[in-house]
Amino acid sequence: MGKVKKYRAKVEVRLKSGYLDPEGESAKKALIDLKYPVGRVSTAKVYEIEFAASGLRKAWMVVEEMCKKLLANPVKDDYSFEVEEIR
Amino acid sequence: MGKVKKYRAKVEVRLKSGYLDPEGESAKKALIDLKYPVGRVSTAKVYEIEFAASGLRKAWMVVEEMCKKLLANPVKDDYSFEVEEIR
Repeated sequence: MGKVKKYRAKVEVRLKSGYLDPEGESAKKALIDLKYPVGRVSTAKVYEIEFAASGLRKAWMVVEEMCKKLLANPVKDDYSFEVEEIR
Repeated sequence: MGKVKKYRAKVEVRLKSGYLDPEGESAKKALIDLKYPVGRVSTAKVYEIEFAASGLRKAWMVVEEMCKKLLANPVKDDYSFEVEEIR
């Protein structure tokens, strides 16, 4: 068992294509009302998570699991993430 | 007046430090309930915006303006963005 290190994950969760994005649509409408020549607008949610793990490979596995269990809904969301060691 | 080109901006809006992030706190609590050794969790909102502008410098100015007028609340939000030409 290696020494525990600290990591920071940046997880981005977005709706799969084909799903309506009401927040994006609402921002698009507001931007058009402000006279901006705007086309498609979509939104995503970012989670920045500091956590402990025994190594980078393990840290990646943990974040993948967090996404599947909690952060993303597998039916409607796609996700991507990056992980870096901190301190 | 140059030819109009298409751009895509990715804008990230996050709470300024010192502001409570209830969504981050809620995700943190849920991750700890799932036995993950999690520390700080914060959230941000991403907007991906396709729009037209006469050049990259102008495109940047437009996105800066969109952030100030609509996407970010200057009292409580920080924002950052990147812009790229598309097609």
